[in-house]
Amino acid sequence: MASYQLFIEKVKEIHKIGAIQGHLGWDQETIMPPKGAQARSEILSWLAKEQHARVTAPDFGEMITQLENSNDLDENQVANVRELRRRYDKAVKLPSEFVAQYALTRSQALVAWQEARTASDFTMFQPHLEKLVEMTNQKIDYYGVETTRYDVLLDEYEFGMKVSDYDPLFAGLKSRLVPLLQNIMEAKKTNPDPKLPTEISFPVKAQTEFCKLVSNAMGFDFEAGRMDASTHPFSAGLWPGDTRFTTRFDEQDPFSCLYAVMHETGHALYEQGLDANHSFTPRGDAVSLGVHESQSRFWENQIGRTPAFWKVVLPWFKQQFPDAPEWTPDELNKIANCVEPGFIRVEADEVTYNLHIMLRYELEKKIFNEKLSVKDIPNTWNQMFSEWFGIEVPEDRMGCLQDIHWSMGAFGYFPTYTLGNLYAAQLLEAMSQEIGDVDEIIETGDWSPMLDWLRPKIHLQGSKLTPSELIEQATGVPPTPQPFIDYVESKYSKLYNLS
Amino acid sequence: MASYQLFIEKVKEIHKIGAIQGHLGWDQETIMPPKGAQARSEILSWLAKEQHARVTAPDFGEMITQLENSNDLDENQVANVRELRRRYDKAVKLPSEFVAQYALTRSQALVAWQEARTASDFTMFQPHLEKLVEMTNQKIDYYGVETTRYDVLLDEYEFGMKVSDYDPLFAGLKSRLVPLLQNIMEAKKTNPDPKLPTEISFPVKAQTEFCKLVSNAMGFDFEAGRMDASTHPFSAGLWPGDTRFTTRFDEQDPFSCLYAVMHETGHALYEQGLDANHSFTPRGDAVSLGVHESQSRFWENQIGRTPAFWKVVLPWFKQQFPDAPEWTPDELNKIANCVEPGFIRVEADEVTYNLHIMLRYELEKKIFNEKLSVKDIPNTWNQMFSEWFGIEVPEDRMGCLQDIHWSMGAFGYFPTYTLGNLYAAQLLEAMSQEIGDVDEIIETGDWSPMLDWLRPKIHLQGSKLTPSELIEQATGVPPTPQPFIDYVESKYSKLYNLS
Repeated sequence: MASYQLFIEKVKEIHKIGAIQGHLGWDQETIMPPKGAQARSEILSWLAKEQHARVTAPDFGEMITQLENSNDLDENQVANVRELRRRYDKAVKLPSEFVAQYALTRSQALVAWQEARTASDFTMFQPHLEKLVEMTNQKIDYYGVETTRYDVLLDEYEFGMKVSDYDPLFAGLKSRLVPLLQNIMEAKKTNPDPKLPTEISFPVKAQTEFCKLVSNAMGFDFEAGRMDASTHPFSAGLWPGDTRFTTRFDEQDPFSCLYAVMHETGHALYEQGLDANHSFTPRGDAVSLGVHESQSRFWENQIGRTPAFWKVVLPWFKQQFPDAPEWTPDELNKIANCVEPGFIRVEADEVTYNLHIMLRYELEKKIFNEKLSVKDIPNTWNQMFSEWFGIEVPEDRMGCLQDIHWSMGAFGYFPTYTLGNLYAAQLLEAMSQEIGDVDEIIETGDWSPMLDWLRPKIHLQGSKLTPSELIEQATGVPPTPQPFIDYVESKYSKLYNLS
Repeated sequence: MASYQLFIEKVKEIHKIGAIQGHLGWDQETIMPPKGAQARSEILSWLAKEQHARVTAPDFGEMITQLENSNDLDENQVANVRELRRRYDKAVKLPSEFVAQYALTRSQALVAWQEARTASDFTMFQPHLEKLVEMTNQKIDYYGVETTRYDVLLDEYEFGMKVSDYDPLFAGLKSRLVPLLQNIMEAKKTNPDPKLPTEISFPVKAQTEFCKLVSNAMGFDFEAGRMDASTHPFSAGLWPGDTRFTTRFDEQDPFSCLYAVMHETGHALYEQGLDANHSFTPRGDAVSLGVHESQSRFWENQIGRTPAFWKVVLPWFKQQFPDAPEWTPDELNKIANCVEPGFIRVEADEVTYNLHIMLRYELEKKIFNEKLSVKDIPNTWNQMFSEWFGIEVPEDRMGCLQDIHWSMGAFGYFPTYTLGNLYAAQLLEAMSQEIGDVDEIIETGDWSPMLDWLRPKIHLQGSKLTPSELIEQATGVPPTPQPFIDYVESKYSKLYNLS
């Protein structure tokens, strides 16, 4: 019988390589000097190859098989064996050279995307995206297609999810969100939303101070992490004691930075709350992107976009922005919840947000299931956007160049954002039944009851269960979109006085 | 016959691990959240073990032997084989477990040193230092002693250098520097040095701007590097296109930051000037610490501490520090060259600097050749300091806790600083013979002739030659202390009107 000790040593080495990749990735996104990109790409490519070699080593595969037949493992050990089995089975299908080349291509594409986005010039990114789509199609062929080609990608980011799961889910959501949006747009004609004053500037330094206070109040430990700036806000749990998130600044709009910080802090709290007894193993890792996104969206929306939140943070806001108008908490909350079809996904309100996801989902289906050509992406994007949102995309920076994901080869990732929204609403409902009305708790200014509820139910669980098992264990019911639909309809009917 | 191609692939992997260690080290010194230290130590330890396993792999050793017997290699390839032979022969003497444990110990000691230094409490660092000395003694035993124990360490940092080389070198220097210092101290009694006004503050932001202008004028490419802050200024050439240096700030004294920046930029220019065709191989690496230090000291002292330098940068200085007195270039130069026995090595003038090095050298000799106990280091340091410098160390922060080196296990490193001073003066002498009077060139504001001289003669050479071969090739004579003695006696006799 293989020794579990030997197996877990190897698992930890594999995870350490991943941690280093995460660290170099964080650096690349935040502070790397531009001319360092080429050598950095080579190093990341080499690390990917090294990691792949370890996961696919024949003796490691044998260890997994032997441990699967063992009766001596506890539930944490079983979870680690299960996750490595899943990873091994996928990894052995990819040739080592492909893995290295794919990592190199991604790392170079990321740099090209940053430049193309700044220039708003899709043609600068197009050859890289073509290469990525080509290699992703190769990857699909290596893995093997059982249902549709896109399903192979969807499964990568949320285990077990397929087009046949998402199609009805999105259709159901759309059938409720589109009428809600129409009602809101109608209501806005008579009662227009408040607007941010254009003549006031919100300095970066003050935004930083304000957001750090909020992040700290949420429970982020700045002794065990950092906040920095990057083009695309993200969060990275590098290793125990080092979780870093980023935000971006718009001096005309402090809400952009604030909600990026609350979102990323939500992710970061999950990482800081993982069980350090299981570091560098799947058991000590976040379970899935969908669950990760539930944590970010919970803090951003269910906590941050409420009148109760604004009552608490108003004094901090006033202190940092003495020139801002004399807004009340309700006015600030209204500004933070304006529903408006806009171009940018990460700045979308909760009603339109999932439409942004569906658009990307439909487009990725076209790319991988219907062979949509990369050169046709901008036009297709713009046409769909015009149809769905009723506004014309003025430039690719506001359209198909806005998201980082494709430049990282992350096709099939976007739908997990919608899962996150659904899980977050379901968690809020279950949480409220146990700890009482969350808005009332927010208003006390002590937000630890929410974090204390999430810690044992989600964070400390790591990857012990599958994502849907975890949601069911935490809430008492399997994942369902109903709580989200109830939440969003109730919240926005109230905000817009809909009948 | 082993394929050179296969050999160099392995060499590049070994160097990539080193580059990652360098990156994590940079992060640890500058921006790492404190609670990340433990896991970071584990990762660094694992990387050290991985690297060691590759260097000492039996088939790698066989490759080296086969390539040594090949006649087909060009001079660059020969240099790579030579350097890996040297490394292999040392590495195989160290057990893998020792290497990992030693890396872990160093990484933990670094954190302890930072805390001890802040608290100025040697006892906080003592157990770590005891462990480091113990493990360093183990390392000496593994390598094997041919002459004295300390020689084994000296050789680590400047190949081939021994106590029997340094003892007469330091004695010779001391016999000239001590009388010079006495004459200067005598002259200061009648003509006291100018003092920095204590009522003026030099803001960090303005210091940053000023120093970036200077670094840029020296030729540092900010598109291929960064400047940050850290407790102990350092420079790290991570990989092609990414060279980072740090400085520190004292709002009462802008010279501290300026000369740290010029020093570290000197190191960084060497790194940025290495031959990118030989990246990730010894041929593309800096050849030695002594030569590295010659680059930093050249820019810091031979360029930066001259009246010509101050003539050029005075307008930048005035623009950033409008509240500063109306100093002339000569006054600024005098302030920048005040000779004064002080406690801190990195802030020492050129006359006393090498005495600081000799003190550390003598102390390290006592530790490793005469078994001086770690607990007795503070007292011994303070007694020697009092004798040599005539002033009493008020606290360990200003004494034996000031330097980072021991916390990194770098015993035997300090003497390379003196070598750097000697090489720098020798390079200046040779350079002047070829490009003309350097002070006149500095005064034009275009400092590229000096960099253009150093690039092919030092930087692009990498490790093609040994350090002393390189100095001889660049200057026409083997390394000699005479140019330094001439330089320092002439410069300070003029500054202090000595007869």
